[in-house]
Amino acid sequence: MRRVAVALVHYPVLDRQKSVVTTAITNLDLHDIARSAHSYGLSDYFVIHPIAAQRELAERVRAHWVGGSGARRIPDRSPALELLTIVPDLEDAIRALGEPEVWTTSAAERGELLEYSAARSRLLQPGPPVLLVFGTGWGLADSVYERATHRLEAIRSPRPDGYNHLSVRAAAAISFDRLLRP
Amino acid sequence: MRRVAVALVHYPVLDRQKSVVTTAITNLDLHDIARSAHSYGLSDYFVIHPIAAQRELAERVRAHWVGGSGARRIPDRSPALELLTIVPDLEDAIRALGEPEVWTTSAAERGELLEYSAARSRLLQPGPPVLLVFGTGWGLADSVYERATHRLEAIRSPRPDGYNHLSVRAAAAISFDRLLRP
Repeated sequence: MRRVAVALVHYPVLDRQKSVVTTAITNLDLHDIARSAHSYGLSDYFVIHPIAAQRELAERVRAHWVGGSGARRIPDRSPALELLTIVPDLEDAIRALGEPEVWTTSAAERGELLEYSAARSRLLQPGPPVLLVFGTGWGLADSVYERATHRLEAIRSPRPDGYNHLSVRAAAAISFDRLLRP
Repeated sequence: MRRVAVALVHYPVLDRQKSVVTTAITNLDLHDIARSAHSYGLSDYFVIHPIAAQRELAERVRAHWVGGSGARRIPDRSPALELLTIVPDLEDAIRALGEPEVWTTSAAERGELLEYSAARSRLLQPGPPVLLVFGTGWGLADSVYERATHRLEAIRSPRPDGYNHLSVRAAAAISFDRLLRP
C-alpha cells in the first residue's frame, strides 16, 4: 500500500463568482478530516493557509487536542490531530512528502479523470506517495488542477437533477472510504 | 428504489462513560447531513431532540436557509435544508414514514449485522421505507438498538489498531455513499 496523505487548500480556491480567493479555516474541517484520515490510515493531513494568523489558529487547535486539556478530556482525538501539519503553500506539503503524485478532487468533472476503482488499484501497487487535494469554498483554482498528476472523478449524485453539494468534510470521508476501505 | 430517510438522535445516546445522556445540537450536523442526504436522494432528515429550546434552535437554522437571508445568499443550501424535520422522539420520525424498517448504525459491532452490500441490494427491491439511524455523542443507547429492524455493519478501519473515530457527519456520508451511490 502506498503512503497516502491529504491536503485541504484555503488558497487558491474559488468563491461563488469563480474568483480566486482565500477562505477562513473552519474548526470542524480540522477535526473531521483528521479523524477520517487517521481512521483510514492516511499518514498526514496538511492544512494549507497563506495567512500566518490563520495558521496560528490551527496550530492552537492542534496543540489543544494533542497535548492540552482536550487531549486529557478526549484522548481518542490525539492520534488524529497529530496528523495535522499547517503550512503556507501546497508546495510545502508536496516537498514534505518527497515527490508525491498529486491527485486533485472536484465536484465538477473536467479533463481526463481517474476513476475511483482504478485509483484504488493504483494505491495497492508500489509507487510514490499520493497527496489527495481538496478545496474549500467553491473548489480548487485552475492553477491547482494544473499541478495534478491525476484528477479524481467527481462523487456523482444518483439524483436525476444531479444535485451535488457535499461539504468538503463529507467529500473527504467518502473519498477515503472509496480508496482505502478494507 | 425504496424511500430512504435519515435520523440523527440526540437522546437517548451514550456519553464517554456509557451513561445515557442528551447531547446538544451541532450546527454543522444540520448542514452536512442535510447536504449529504439530499445529494444521495434521501427523502427526509429527522433531527431528534427532546428539549424544545434545542428544537427551536434547529428550526431557526432551517428557516434561515430555506426562506431567509441564507437562502438568498447560497440558494444551493435550500433544497438540502428543506429535508430537515425536527421532532422530539425517534417514534415521531417512524410515524411520519408510516411503517419503515429501522436500520441502526454503530461504530462497534454487536448482534447480527446487515452488511452494506446486502443492504444496498435490499434498497433496490420493493419494500417499506428505510430509516437510517445515527447517534451523536458516543453512540445510540441500547433502547434504540432494540427498536432496530436491522443493524448495519460498522464502518471498519483498515488500520491494524482498528482506530475508528469518525465524526457522525463523516459516518453518515460514507453510509449514504455505500448504500446509494449510482
